[in-house]
Amino acid sequence: MTTLTKLGEFGLINRFKKSVKLDSSVKKGTGDDCAVIKFNKDSYLLFTCDMLIEGMDFTRRDNPYLVGRKAIAVSLSDIAACAGLPRYCLVALGLPRKTSLTFADKLFKGMRDLAGRYKVNIAGGDLSRAGRLTIDVSMLGKVEKKLLVLRSGAKKGDIIFVSGKLGGSIRGRHLSFIPRVKEARFLVKNFKVNAMIDISDGLLQDLGHILEESRVGAALYEDLIPLSAEARNLGEALYMGEDFELLFTLAPKQAKRLIAAKTPNFKPIGEITRQADRLRIIDNRGREKVIQPRGFRHF
Amino acid sequence: MTTLTKLGEFGLINRFKKSVKLDSSVKKGTGDDCAVIKFNKDSYLLFTCDMLIEGMDFTRRDNPYLVGRKAIAVSLSDIAACAGLPRYCLVALGLPRKTSLTFADKLFKGMRDLAGRYKVNIAGGDLSRAGRLTIDVSMLGKVEKKLLVLRSGAKKGDIIFVSGKLGGSIRGRHLSFIPRVKEARFLVKNFKVNAMIDISDGLLQDLGHILEESRVGAALYEDLIPLSAEARNLGEALYMGEDFELLFTLAPKQAKRLIAAKTPNFKPIGEITRQADRLRIIDNRGREKVIQPRGFRHF
Repeated sequence: MTTLTKLGEFGLINRFKKSVKLDSSVKKGTGDDCAVIKFNKDSYLLFTCDMLIEGMDFTRRDNPYLVGRKAIAVSLSDIAACAGLPRYCLVALGLPRKTSLTFADKLFKGMRDLAGRYKVNIAGGDLSRAGRLTIDVSMLGKVEKKLLVLRSGAKKGDIIFVSGKLGGSIRGRHLSFIPRVKEARFLVKNFKVNAMIDISDGLLQDLGHILEESRVGAALYEDLIPLSAEARNLGEALYMGEDFELLFTLAPKQAKRLIAAKTPNFKPIGEITRQADRLRIIDNRGREKVIQPRGFRHF
Repeated sequence: MTTLTKLGEFGLINRFKKSVKLDSSVKKGTGDDCAVIKFNKDSYLLFTCDMLIEGMDFTRRDNPYLVGRKAIAVSLSDIAACAGLPRYCLVALGLPRKTSLTFADKLFKGMRDLAGRYKVNIAGGDLSRAGRLTIDVSMLGKVEKKLLVLRSGAKKGDIIFVSGKLGGSIRGRHLSFIPRVKEARFLVKNFKVNAMIDISDGLLQDLGHILEESRVGAALYEDLIPLSAEARNLGEALYMGEDFELLFTLAPKQAKRLIAAKTPNFKPIGEITRQADRLRIIDNRGREKVIQPRGFRHF
């Protein structure tokens, strides 16, 4: 019997993706941070969902306010990765029978506060009983056609950037991170961003998605990767996930402009290479090695 | 400690609804089958989600093809209740680690086949590991502004209709029901439908939502309620839920036209009364009693 553990999350997603038929109104289906749907002359609709499950994405001991906040934040981060503006969401909630009203109120308040701050309407939802707290937020956003960024646009010679710092998010930041909506909008309005993704499963794995969709390779410089205060080592910044920072690429001239702008938030960490070169990492003595774009695995 | 069991599902939903702020682009938020969002000059976007959980909405022994089918069907039914055309959906899936590939393939095929039949694009999703199989489908549809039907438009004197037959769905039909998209479109294109809902939690409870949103009462005639072949008694048709038939109201002249059209699918079962008269049921000897609009309870 083939189980999911053998096939893996992305194996299963690819299997499903291949079997699904989409009509021409879908600009991009499975395989990016959001589905991209034709909307009107100037804009696309962005449509995304993220399911959080107790024991996987948070624990019973976590502050319910922050759990509610995170449920909204992860979808905001997906909209940001496509350079869109979030607008509406629905919350499907599976609650254990013994949930206290105090707990539910805090959970709701966490959702409401963050949604309010990003001008997102919580327009409805669904409530069920579940063994473990389960929250699926589906979110709609809009993006001007000319500002949309996908994973698939990276080009050989592009410089790879990351917003913020990486690693150790699981020690707390994953519950209180800032979704990079404003940063993504700043980028696409001032620069030509070729490819972008948010780092949810770890820098290498998410960079791997850009490489796969764009059919390119990459070289990263160990010394340039910005470690968060909570990161214990480089490995955590490469593999750990839940950073929810933006990972994006710019052509060299654009990159120079961004570096010259001295914004504190964006750091160059490497460059896009030919696909045949795969994913390489270069240490502080200039030694290169090919590494696997692996990271967090759900199965 | 106040638990959810005391407050109940609808108590919690109302509590949340009151605390949420919506901007003017949301025509209707929590409290109908879909959220209704302003879209363009002629149409609204409909946005809905439904979470199915193993042990609640289906069992481990059910055919995974039919479980996948149901996950899509319940959201189609919500779009139908607002008289819309379904267009896009996302599937958030929580899969147990030991799920076999055969199981996952059948689940997907059930989703794909039904989505295909209704011209719905499965545009993406999210995959997580879960203790129990959990499926949340979020769906987008469109409806012409002039054809939108909500729960809130029922008027005193309206005749109450139901599509299909009720009761006993849990014995199998809940996995293979026909979402009434075509029927709803036929109705709104040929008649002025004042209020509509789909019956998910039982005739009385869902009629109760129309009464509450429309601020009216209703009288139902026991003899007129169409029992399905699987229903063991009237109580199952009134309270059991999972019928996913349309419940709707028409002004008397419109109702006469619908009855005269002799469509086999729509049966009159009662009438809308003053709110003060509440919900009454009239038996075959003409005796009336006030009944509670209760039905399936999640908590």
